[in-house]
Amino acid sequence: MPTPTALPLAAVRFTGGLLGERIERVGTVTLLRQWDALNDRIPGAPPSHAVRNLRIAAGDEEGAFDGLCFQDSDVAKWLEAACYRASFAPDPTLAAAMDELVDLYERAQEADGYLHTYTQLKPEAERWDNLRDLHELYCFGHFIEAAVAHGEVTGSPRLLAVATKLADLIDRTFGPGPGQIRAYPGHPELELALVKLARATGDQKYQDLAEFFVRERGRSPQFFVEEAQRRQETVPPVWAYFDGQAYWQAHVPVTEQTEPRGHAVRAVYLYAAMADLARETGATDLRESGERLWRETVAKHLYIIGGIGADGPGGENFSAPYDLPDDRSYAETCAAIGLMMWARRLLDLSLDAGYTEVMERALYNNVLAGLSQDACHYFYVNPLAVNPGETRRRYDCKMVKTQRVPWFGCACCPPNVARLLSSLGHYAVSRTPAGLALHLFTPLRVEHGDWRIEMQAAYPWSEQVEIRVVAAPAGEAELAFRSADAAWALNDAPVTVVPTHGYLRLTRRWQPGDRLTAELPLPVRRVRAHPRVTSAAGRVALMRGPVVYAVEEQDHGPGLSSLGLRREAPLHARWDGEAWGGVTVLTGEAVRETDPKTLYQSDLAPTLETVPLRAIPYAWWGNRGEGEMRIWLRDYES
Amino acid sequence: MPTPTALPLAAVRFTGGLLGERIERVGTVTLLRQWDALNDRIPGAPPSHAVRNLRIAAGDEEGAFDGLCFQDSDVAKWLEAACYRASFAPDPTLAAAMDELVDLYERAQEADGYLHTYTQLKPEAERWDNLRDLHELYCFGHFIEAAVAHGEVTGSPRLLAVATKLADLIDRTFGPGPGQIRAYPGHPELELALVKLARATGDQKYQDLAEFFVRERGRSPQFFVEEAQRRQETVPPVWAYFDGQAYWQAHVPVTEQTEPRGHAVRAVYLYAAMADLARETGATDLRESGERLWRETVAKHLYIIGGIGADGPGGENFSAPYDLPDDRSYAETCAAIGLMMWARRLLDLSLDAGYTEVMERALYNNVLAGLSQDACHYFYVNPLAVNPGETRRRYDCKMVKTQRVPWFGCACCPPNVARLLSSLGHYAVSRTPAGLALHLFTPLRVEHGDWRIEMQAAYPWSEQVEIRVVAAPAGEAELAFRSADAAWALNDAPVTVVPTHGYLRLTRRWQPGDRLTAELPLPVRRVRAHPRVTSAAGRVALMRGPVVYAVEEQDHGPGLSSLGLRREAPLHARWDGEAWGGVTVLTGEAVRETDPKTLYQSDLAPTLETVPLRAIPYAWWGNRGEGEMRIWLRDYES
Repeated sequence: MPTPTALPLAAVRFTGGLLGERIERVGTVTLLRQWDALNDRIPGAPPSHAVRNLRIAAGDEEGAFDGLCFQDSDVAKWLEAACYRASFAPDPTLAAAMDELVDLYERAQEADGYLHTYTQLKPEAERWDNLRDLHELYCFGHFIEAAVAHGEVTGSPRLLAVATKLADLIDRTFGPGPGQIRAYPGHPELELALVKLARATGDQKYQDLAEFFVRERGRSPQFFVEEAQRRQETVPPVWAYFDGQAYWQAHVPVTEQTEPRGHAVRAVYLYAAMADLARETGATDLRESGERLWRETVAKHLYIIGGIGADGPGGENFSAPYDLPDDRSYAETCAAIGLMMWARRLLDLSLDAGYTEVMERALYNNVLAGLSQDACHYFYVNPLAVNPGETRRRYDCKMVKTQRVPWFGCACCPPNVARLLSSLGHYAVSRTPAGLALHLFTPLRVEHGDWRIEMQAAYPWSEQVEIRVVAAPAGEAELAFRSADAAWALNDAPVTVVPTHGYLRLTRRWQPGDRLTAELPLPVRRVRAHPRVTSAAGRVALMRGPVVYAVEEQDHGPGLSSLGLRREAPLHARWDGEAWGGVTVLTGEAVRETDPKTLYQSDLAPTLETVPLRAIPYAWWGNRGEGEMRIWLRDYES
Repeated sequence: MPTPTALPLAAVRFTGGLLGERIERVGTVTLLRQWDALNDRIPGAPPSHAVRNLRIAAGDEEGAFDGLCFQDSDVAKWLEAACYRASFAPDPTLAAAMDELVDLYERAQEADGYLHTYTQLKPEAERWDNLRDLHELYCFGHFIEAAVAHGEVTGSPRLLAVATKLADLIDRTFGPGPGQIRAYPGHPELELALVKLARATGDQKYQDLAEFFVRERGRSPQFFVEEAQRRQETVPPVWAYFDGQAYWQAHVPVTEQTEPRGHAVRAVYLYAAMADLARETGATDLRESGERLWRETVAKHLYIIGGIGADGPGGENFSAPYDLPDDRSYAETCAAIGLMMWARRLLDLSLDAGYTEVMERALYNNVLAGLSQDACHYFYVNPLAVNPGETRRRYDCKMVKTQRVPWFGCACCPPNVARLLSSLGHYAVSRTPAGLALHLFTPLRVEHGDWRIEMQAAYPWSEQVEIRVVAAPAGEAELAFRSADAAWALNDAPVTVVPTHGYLRLTRRWQPGDRLTAELPLPVRRVRAHPRVTSAAGRVALMRGPVVYAVEEQDHGPGLSSLGLRREAPLHARWDGEAWGGVTVLTGEAVRETDPKTLYQSDLAPTLETVPLRAIPYAWWGNRGEGEMRIWLRDYES
């Protein structure tokens, strides 16, 4: 098994800036409030019942299971996040909660290792009865990921022991052998966990089991088809209305899948596992299929905010190529997180800034939008255009919330965003065979082995970035970082190395005090989409660096579909220190079509008036009460 | 009761032209095929079972009810249409079917007058058990309308006797008196029928009952709320997810309703009944409320094709003002027919071309689109933009069919379009207090009383129209017709009378041979929508006269969202005699944005190429196999 490329989180410290502030707020606000939510202590929020389910399973309380069949996973994702947080900023409240959970998991686990409170507590539920829908393998995955994090961070073997006992049960139960079930999870996730468990334990069998799940998927005869027949299912679930087995990425074997299909979160968790296995096993078929799926996703299925999943009412599915409606985007927070997970794993296969840029796009837009500025309200669905009056009247927008909420009945996203941000060190830096690669431009300090590196940046708001080597290994070592189209200097002398796939890879004897500096170009960009993206055709969006901008009714009044931009109108990036503790807004001139007197007019050019533009970063939208929001603005040639 | 303004259909003969041809095809093809469909004789089409339900209720067959709770109405609408057809073009097959139905209805009716096969045959169904959802009053309405038509056309009292017996049962059962049910139909329709029955029988009580239903609606306590409580309903039906009681137009009394709400067909049937009652009773409150609802509908809720109902997945509801998406339009054929019915009744209150123009817009676009060129395939939902690849993948487009079909499981539209076209004489001409009003420009001959008038026109394709008085009453009489912004001549001398609300009202002693002639202006128009219509903002549609044009993939290749029009590009109307027996197409230059290499591009103006444009009348779309279709094209300033 190759060495993991991620550094321990304690080795990567975010030292301020936008990301550092968000990560800190997740630790001091989000995780604590989420623990309250999981314990049903947030007035007015939908009760989670998730910890209570564990207590009942552990015998500490009487009562019945409540929640969804994947309710356990909310706790596991939260615990994983709390472990990551503890690795760089221990907190007694979080530590007590972590200990409480370890204790509960130990006692809730059945003698043979089984641990899924839904199946354990629901009288009518039976193990392995509906692997397609009931998420027990998905919950196992999240639990195992949490246990691996717990072991790494605390050094305690307790939770890892629960996890290996569970994994051994799965390993006995599933597989190609006699008496085993030749199945795979309805919602991929366990595959990722088993790879981590293999690394944590050094036991190859868990990775082999992950590979079995990945390669068995979609093979004929299709397990989910036969399983549904056994259940005498006559009407397939509504979310598989159009996509059939592709909803579960189980229509053909993964190596034959050529376009992203079905439930977007499931898809990218699966594709991420394919990348993991390609790296661990060197399997070129998994690598090539995954890279092909990536190219197709980025070319035809990616929202400008770095989101995926365009068919909301149909079950957060990938839709047809270029079908990216803005008012009915699903763009689930979890899906963007999954896209980051996939991109990060592809970076391990090829150090290519194409992956990093998508990762960054998802992070600064879709993922950050999932968490409110007060750090305790969430979006699950992330629309690219909202008109609350319409959203409230349209059944096909019923999944769209016009304001972030304190919790959800289906609460997968909140702990996932806490988990992602608390583990962002894994995405910022990685080991390469010859040194280190820095992926994100943000204030941070890396202390790993003989390396000690400090980065200063106010990215994505301003251009200056400095990477300072405080200490380095003896001898030659590689430091890789994105060129980002900038003119880099090493100790004020121009770097003449040509970037490889967007990364500058500098190999030298690094000296303490070595300074890499650049001004990253951050012009305001008018971005157009492929004209087959109907919601964006004839429209432009504004970006600066990785940040997508949006306009809000609070700044422009109602009727944002009347707003447009002239091609020559100057646009300015302006630091607004008053707004949410400081963001860069875009200002300039927009035009607004004046309201005509009738619904339809013939042969009249629209009347335009110039109005001031104030666009805010998309991820900040909806933090000033309810109102309209839009990304795509009308494009006026003159 | 005032005299009906509609003439007997035999008095208005369509003598060719677009409408005449469609009406003829309905008689020679559509009605015969629909009789086959209602008798389950169309291979591959969903079986109707509707006639069979009647046979079972009549005791002629054994079996169970099948179909929807409003299946009876399909037969009744068909019978009404067949009667209309028989009034001007008798056919032995249709006559035999009509006789068969009269016989079945007589024997299916219960002793006390009840006649609703769903309730009669379903063991679990009970009368008046769910007036909100089960459509028995709606079915009664369609049956009574059919019976009135049958009596008028055949002179036979038989079906009218069944209808009055049924209406008497309703009159005993519903009303404000002791022991009566203070309710109203879940789907308005019966109100329209009772007004017709009052006219046909001269019995005022039926009209009073219609007025009771209309005025009781929405009063507090709300009947449907209490009824749902009696049924112990906990989850309201999905179609009332957002709209609540407004889905049934039962949120407030009709005189307090200020915007169109809820299920679009129900809404316009109700509003049409309000107009009927306003005329019959002189009630100004019903008139004013109805006119206000009309203004609001036309100003904020009307698709360019004359369609209504924007929230398809939510149950064909009116949505928020200006929310008129093009790919998820419901624009049900029945709703456009209902809009015509409403407009026609408002014309009886005020001879105003505003109503006629909407009626015409609905007719030439949405309604005609509902019927295929082969006259036996149908659209229920009428989208304004279709991309079959997307439509097939999006759950929120699952109601959209990309091709017309031979029948539907829910088959309200096919017989309704046959009924509308077979009774188009009612819409073309009406009596005014002092003479006649001609509403449509189409070849026709009116023979009514002392009037004999012939109109020649190739509208909407060409400009020339001639109205010739062949015979006229002695003394002064009024002939009214739309000015349509044309310069009219009477016997080649300019007409100098100023139009009133868009109608020229000429009162004189008409002489045989008097000729009114005009060239109706039919320029190709670039039409823009209010910029709050997001799907149309920054886009233009093409119209000529009342005809909306669309582009199809068959003429332009895939990717129609890439197509646009330059403001100065010349456009031509061209008669294409080869296309579907002759239609006027629009030709000229369009521009197409060339496909860029990536999904998003920064700071690059789109590359445009000039391509030939060929736009066909919207109502003809989808008659050349499956493909993309669009109405709203991108608007290029230069």
